[in-house]
Amino acid sequence: MKVEGKHYRTIWLKENSKAISIIDQRFLPHQFVIEDLYSVKDVVQAIKEMHVRGAGLIGATAGYGMYLAAIEAGNSDAFHERLLEYSDLIKATRPTAVNLGWAVNLQLSALNNDLPVKEKIKIARDMAVHIADEDSGFCQSIGAHGLPIIEQISQLKKGKPVNILTHCNAGWLAFVDYGSATAPIYAAFEKGIDVHVWVDETRPRNQGAGLTAWELHNHGVKHTVIVDNAGGHLMQHGMVDIVITGADRVTRTGDTANKIGTYLKALAAFDNNIPFYIALPSSSFDWQKKDGVLEIPIEIRSPEEVKYVQGLCGDEIKKVLIAPVDSPAVNYGFDVTPARLISGLITERGICQAREADIMNMFPEKKYNFLNTAVK
Amino acid sequence: MKVEGKHYRTIWLKENSKAISIIDQRFLPHQFVIEDLYSVKDVVQAIKEMHVRGAGLIGATAGYGMYLAAIEAGNSDAFHERLLEYSDLIKATRPTAVNLGWAVNLQLSALNNDLPVKEKIKIARDMAVHIADEDSGFCQSIGAHGLPIIEQISQLKKGKPVNILTHCNAGWLAFVDYGSATAPIYAAFEKGIDVHVWVDETRPRNQGAGLTAWELHNHGVKHTVIVDNAGGHLMQHGMVDIVITGADRVTRTGDTANKIGTYLKALAAFDNNIPFYIALPSSSFDWQKKDGVLEIPIEIRSPEEVKYVQGLCGDEIKKVLIAPVDSPAVNYGFDVTPARLISGLITERGICQAREADIMNMFPEKKYNFLNTAVK
Repeated sequence: MKVEGKHYRTIWLKENSKAISIIDQRFLPHQFVIEDLYSVKDVVQAIKEMHVRGAGLIGATAGYGMYLAAIEAGNSDAFHERLLEYSDLIKATRPTAVNLGWAVNLQLSALNNDLPVKEKIKIARDMAVHIADEDSGFCQSIGAHGLPIIEQISQLKKGKPVNILTHCNAGWLAFVDYGSATAPIYAAFEKGIDVHVWVDETRPRNQGAGLTAWELHNHGVKHTVIVDNAGGHLMQHGMVDIVITGADRVTRTGDTANKIGTYLKALAAFDNNIPFYIALPSSSFDWQKKDGVLEIPIEIRSPEEVKYVQGLCGDEIKKVLIAPVDSPAVNYGFDVTPARLISGLITERGICQAREADIMNMFPEKKYNFLNTAVK
Repeated sequence: MKVEGKHYRTIWLKENSKAISIIDQRFLPHQFVIEDLYSVKDVVQAIKEMHVRGAGLIGATAGYGMYLAAIEAGNSDAFHERLLEYSDLIKATRPTAVNLGWAVNLQLSALNNDLPVKEKIKIARDMAVHIADEDSGFCQSIGAHGLPIIEQISQLKKGKPVNILTHCNAGWLAFVDYGSATAPIYAAFEKGIDVHVWVDETRPRNQGAGLTAWELHNHGVKHTVIVDNAGGHLMQHGMVDIVITGADRVTRTGDTANKIGTYLKALAAFDNNIPFYIALPSSSFDWQKKDGVLEIPIEIRSPEEVKYVQGLCGDEIKKVLIAPVDSPAVNYGFDVTPARLISGLITERGICQAREADIMNMFPEKKYNFLNTAVK
């Protein structure tokens, strides 16, 4: 998508170099910083400390990280041993995002051969690019499949603005391009449909206020920033036509782990008869899991993220303490929205109900995956 | 309640002076600032700009403000005209809190006589003190009535900590003393029951992180600060035993306007079978209104409160910008929790169901109030 008129992806191979370039998202919306990653260590830090974040982008970064891992492993005598060590390091950076393990495992499979190291490095590079391209393509397809939902609301409202609420950032900054939740919004915008986005600020890290608002602003899409507390009131008063969020992990039954607070918005949408959609590429499915609330591990992050808020003060980025310095805080990163509250899943293949039978119809090749795993 | 060992109320008559003293809550939890109010203008500013806030304290401040209004009106030839002008100014400061109009009207009734101005000023002073004392007494009663609910949970949990979630600040800082939602918590704490409070930070103004946590910390009550997004997850995982919040306005049918985001917590409590109580003195009832969502006016505050977060940076209180400077924001101050989601109302007279018949049984003198108003 565009930043001040120039097209960017969120991650790319640095030209004439064995490095990866990313947008360091910690400084958005105030500063647009590009960072180069030269090693697995750099990649691990970038994922862990959220220079990059978002399901798709974490996967793509892990994919590119495995390319750097292959280069580093190539310098040792024990390529596969080192590669597995690096892959464990990368997998351990964030516990909730399923794309992380998915991308690392794709690379491990591709590199599980007896070709010379130079060939393996080339394969890892190609696979990293493929993962990123596929992510971008999937997001574009999600946009195409989600567009008719917004079009239909626009027609019912006779061209009046379609008010879409989203939580956190499932925009292009969370993927390689286009985004998941934002893809149908961008598609509708391109088609000239009058859309307006309610942007949940999404505490504690404010990815809504900082990233989603920045994206929409740069692209010229009408939007309004709200606190996470506001959505219920807006829904009660007919000011929200549809909710679309992303997902960090979706079970084969449709239970959805997404940024903490998503569940509360799903409850409010349900209570007010407002459609609530999850947009995700299939890489965010966890085909093994059935009960999201019981089975999906929820990352607990630093309490400092709750107690301190980062923002621009004058022309410097600073952190301010908002609670008594001695009060404890806890920081659960995600929650799980039960499938019963979800109107549908918008995937790269189309829209399906959030229930196992429908998801399996959409992805028939995964039908026996669960059983196969169970008898392993 | 106690601040560093010394007992304070939130508002009091300044000794040997015709001024009112308040705790300027804008600087909490970082600085404990006492401010003296000398005029109606000071009072209006203090309420509007939230040096004081919270249903009970707004009422008490309006009561004391009318004492200053009587003094100022006494300097003019047209006492009652001026008094009415002042009362309009005070009533217009915050649209959602019903205590504001209630306290002003009490004073107007008390001053609607032909006594000499000096007498009237004395009456206004006494009435202001009476309003404050009554608020404090009501909160103490709310504590006594709410205590058995917490005791019962403690018994069921065999002495394990009772986890109470609260939103915003309905603590002693929101009243004259004790608080509404916190009164049963303080009562349980005094009785030696093991209580732990989940404190919603309560964006945009963070009255939870800033005020409730500060209160509880000063009083030695165990607590943990969480973002507003976290409550649903905690409830899904059995980490919340009961929710108690305050109210800014409750209809005669039990619909409850409270700080924005309360409705979302009520939905989550309902979805997880967790008792959800509203604690309020009867001064927070709006006996005229029946449908909270349709009838209670919701204050829209400055978008700057959404886009900027205030906190301590080094040893200075600063504001940081968390959204793109050009992105619009909107700031609804309250939402309405429908009575159907509320387990009960804890009032100074006891606990009743959040439905008209039960509320009228508790306050029989208000039974025909609605009809009387309707035929006026």
